Amino acid sequence: MKMQKLNGYTLITYKDLTLRNGVLVQGLPGIGLVGKIAVDYIVSSLNLEKVAEIIGPGIMLPSGNVGVYVTNEGWLQLPSYKFYVYNGSERDILFLTSEVQPATWAQHEVAERVLDLFVSMGGREVVGVCGTAVEEPEARVYYALASGTVIDKLEALGARRSGGGTITGACGLLPALASLRGLDAFVLMGSTQTSEPNFIAAKEVITALSKLYGLNVNLEEIEKVIAKIKEKEEEALRIAETAKQKEGEQFPSWYV
Amino acid sequence: MKMQKLNGYTLITYKDLTLRNGVLVQGLPGIGLVGKIAVDYIVSSLNLEKVAEIIGPGIMLPSGNVGVYVTNEGWLQLPSYKFYVYNGSERDILFLTSEVQPATWAQHEVAERVLDLFVSMGGREVVGVCGTAVEEPEARVYYALASGTVIDKLEALGARRSGGGTITGACGLLPALASLRGLDAFVLMGSTQTSEPNFIAAKEVITALSKLYGLNVNLEEIEKVIAKIKEKEEEALRIAETAKQKEGEQFPSWYV
Amino acid sequence: MKMQKLNGYTLITYKDLTLRNGVLVQGLPGIGLVGKIAVDYIVSSLNLEKVAEIIGPGIMLPSGNVGVYVTNEGWLQLPSYKFYVYNGSERDILFLTSEVQPATWAQHEVAERVLDLFVSMGGREVVGVCGTAVEEPEARVYYALASGTVIDKLEALGARRSGGGTITGACGLLPALASLRGLDAFVLMGSTQTSEPNFIAAKEVITALSKLYGLNVNLEEIEKVIAKIKEKEEEALRIAETAKQKEGEQFPSWYV
Amino acid sequence: MKMQKLNGYTLITYKDLTLRNGVLVQGLPGIGLVGKIAVDYIVSSLNLEKVAEIIGPGIMLPSGNVGVYVTNEGWLQLPSYKFYVYNGSERDILFLTSEVQPATWAQHEVAERVLDLFVSMGGREVVGVCGTAVEEPEARVYYALASGTVIDKLEALGARRSGGGTITGACGLLPALASLRGLDAFVLMGSTQTSEPNFIAAKEVITALSKLYGLNVNLEEIEKVIAKIKEKEEEALRIAETAKQKEGEQFPSWYV
Repeated sequence: MKMQKLNGYTLITYKDLTLRNGVLVQGLPGIGLVGKIAVDYIVSSLNLEKVAEIIGPGIMLPSGNVGVYVTNEGWLQLPSYKFYVYNGSERDILFLTSEVQPATWAQHEVAERVLDLFVSMGGREVVGVCGTAVEEPEARVYYALASGTVIDKLEALGARRSGGGTITGACGLLPALASLRGLDAFVLMGSTQTSEPNFIAAKEVITALSKLYGLNVNLEEIEKVIAKIKEKEEEALRIAETAKQKEGEQFPSWYV
Repeated sequence: MKMQKLNGYTLITYKDLTLRNGVLVQGLPGIGLVGKIAVDYIVSSLNLEKVAEIIGPGIMLPSGNVGVYVTNEGWLQLPSYKFYVYNGSERDILFLTSEVQPATWAQHEVAERVLDLFVSMGGREVVGVCGTAVEEPEARVYYALASGTVIDKLEALGARRSGGGTITGACGLLPALASLRGLDAFVLMGSTQTSEPNFIAAKEVITALSKLYGLNVNLEEIEKVIAKIKEKEEEALRIAETAKQKEGEQFPSWYV
Repeated sequence: MKMQKLNGYTLITYKDLTLRNGVLVQGLPGIGLVGKIAVDYIVSSLNLEKVAEIIGPGIMLPSGNVGVYVTNEGWLQLPSYKFYVYNGSERDILFLTSEVQPATWAQHEVAERVLDLFVSMGGREVVGVCGTAVEEPEARVYYALASGTVIDKLEALGARRSGGGTITGACGLLPALASLRGLDAFVLMGSTQTSEPNFIAAKEVITALSKLYGLNVNLEEIEKVIAKIKEKEEEALRIAETAKQKEGEQFPSWYV
Repeated sequence: MKMQKLNGYTLITYKDLTLRNGVLVQGLPGIGLVGKIAVDYIVSSLNLEKVAEIIGPGIMLPSGNVGVYVTNEGWLQLPSYKFYVYNGSERDILFLTSEVQPATWAQHEVAERVLDLFVSMGGREVVGVCGTAVEEPEARVYYALASGTVIDKLEALGARRSGGGTITGACGLLPALASLRGLDAFVLMGSTQTSEPNFIAAKEVITALSKLYGLNVNLEEIEKVIAKIKEKEEEALRIAETAKQKEGEQFPSWYV
């Protein structure tokens, strides 16, 4: 374990890394939790090793308070940016997730510290993954560009180009700042109708990332979760339907 | 493209510039959008080249969130201070606009970074343009002084001297800080009765700037916009009038 | 005019100063405006020269917005800390006032910049003057101590020792920080029943300062203001009384 | 008295210290005031000497305003972090308390300054003491771990391992940051059902600390306070009971 001070932040390195043609994939809490679910699932499914953490004043509890988590085993844990590495056959991918987005006033400084770290390891390409609110029911993958060099592979992937709007938080900020450093950079968004955790949209993002970077992620677990949620929703529908019919028994429809 | 770090802000220079007897004209969002409309119109009408941008923590989305814009073509764009250059026959003018005013806590540091840049290019004179709320219906141009050296030309212009009050935001702050560096500095304000985007007041400011700095700005487009708005307002009035008359048909006036 | 950068603040010096056994008297807006009225009155009455100003991010418009004042003559004026000098027969006094208190997050850094300046000029003693809310109707002068060296002269003055409580804002902070630098330091408070501008309490503070430092302040003007306010209050009372009597004519008292 | 500037904070040292195998015990205001009562009681009971203070922008009045206290004797007192030393037979303990928790944005920088100071004195072990909200009526001591080296002695103490959750504020943050510096670190929490000052929980914490570090703290005074509070509560209960019975005399129960 190595510790470095970075302008009020602390970088904890568990393993010295050089990335071959490195990619950074960042998935933090946000719309439909799409980005965080996607990255957490890949990390867990590929059993990736945690190689670094960043802690500091702008990375707080989700309540907005400064503080720490206590694990079920009674250990203190600072909210942090956590980095996991995947060594692919051709290039290495650094996955980044956290319990929280940085505080508003800290978004820029935290993003710059992440890029400092990533570039120092040999990073070349930055991807922000998150959700995007849409009206259409189907979950699809949209992309937005910070640099032109990635258009072809995103089009080849079958992702749709995003229309105009805004992306709040770190998902768009990190790639935008990365492109200013000459890195390839873009955003991948899973579309979602609700702000509830959306595992279907996350699965679409996982699939897209897998195609882009040759990941071999087993989707069984997330499909089970999706099936379970679908089942529950259908059961809730059936109950509501039955209730309606019972009401129908008691009150003729013109009565309402 | 050249990048420089400035106390947490990033200056992106697309073109190295030396300004001959340089003027800086800043028009940001504010009362009646007068300043921003004026500068945007001049930049677009004279087809000026973007020469620099400043991004950083205090320049956020208008919602107060950190984040990025996505253009209709799917490109990420950081909210930023954007600089455009006009090479006049005698002196060069740097126009500055943005989608937003800096956050309150960042107004001073952003203004100081702008002045650092401007002075390093050979700048001499700073103008803040914006709207000012008045009760009179006519749009007029008012000025307020940060340095005495500019009185004569502003009086010659036919602008009115502002009475007492306050100017919030960057419009007054930038010239005030500029005068402390020994630059000539003042504010030009287009008077507006409403806080709605006021194109008439903006046109007055454009005309004043054109006279002051020998700009040759074609006003046709802004006049079309003004005419269109006037037409719509008149139509709305006609509809309201007709509605009143119809009411009159149904209910005699003493009935109300 | 000389300009110096101090950690994001700017010190503007109009005149180089060395203070003989220097005293700093700070009176900013606060309870009953007592401190500000007292210092403004002394500065105006003794016609003191402005020798320095401090401007910067924590010194904002009273609205909490960043911005500038426009004088009735159309000049931009940054809200600022303003320093005026009085050359006494034995020691020199620097009076400090402003349109505002610094923002909460800036109180410490602004106070430290003030002390840096004051100590560099040869300052020895710091006085915060302000109001204190009491229930008693009479305006009296209370003192609170940051250093023990000044007790005797404050007791000799006839001021009362303050009881326990808190002093919010710069009035107590500046002397407390000053005493940590080894300066003599205390607070003088004029007691007030209301939070309205209290000229009577301010006059008491002026009188106390005059005795302490041998100032020769003509109190005629402030006594006129006090008399005028008293007159208006009495007239308001008379009107209310008359109104009551008239009501008495119309409605017998048992009717209400 | 020695003063040192630490990134905007001021360290006031009344006595130069080297700690033998030093322990830092921090108890600040928080849930049930448990941590602050415990540390204040030990400091007062063992009559410990104040050896240092930290003041600065993030350490404000509890109201969230910047300002100072005035003691009953009329002395200004800055809110501060106060350090007291206990020289044990084998190791030295530094007790830390304050009137307040640092402002949210200052928690990290204040904690880092405390650790800088503590490490420079030869510190090895950091304990945060505070309250934890539980549903069970009995006051018990829970612990949470920042480093594994302390498990055995905490288990030997008979304290219970905390379950999962969060600890807001400095109580968990300080040990968590300490462990990153290689210090032994943990949290001791007295469980409380209410957010009112809980002297019973504080006594449990005092007892635990006494066992851990061989302190000889006389508990008589805190037991008197506890007995007094119990008495008052019982009296309040009796009054409520009597009132109920009287109501019973006037209104038969079915009437209500």
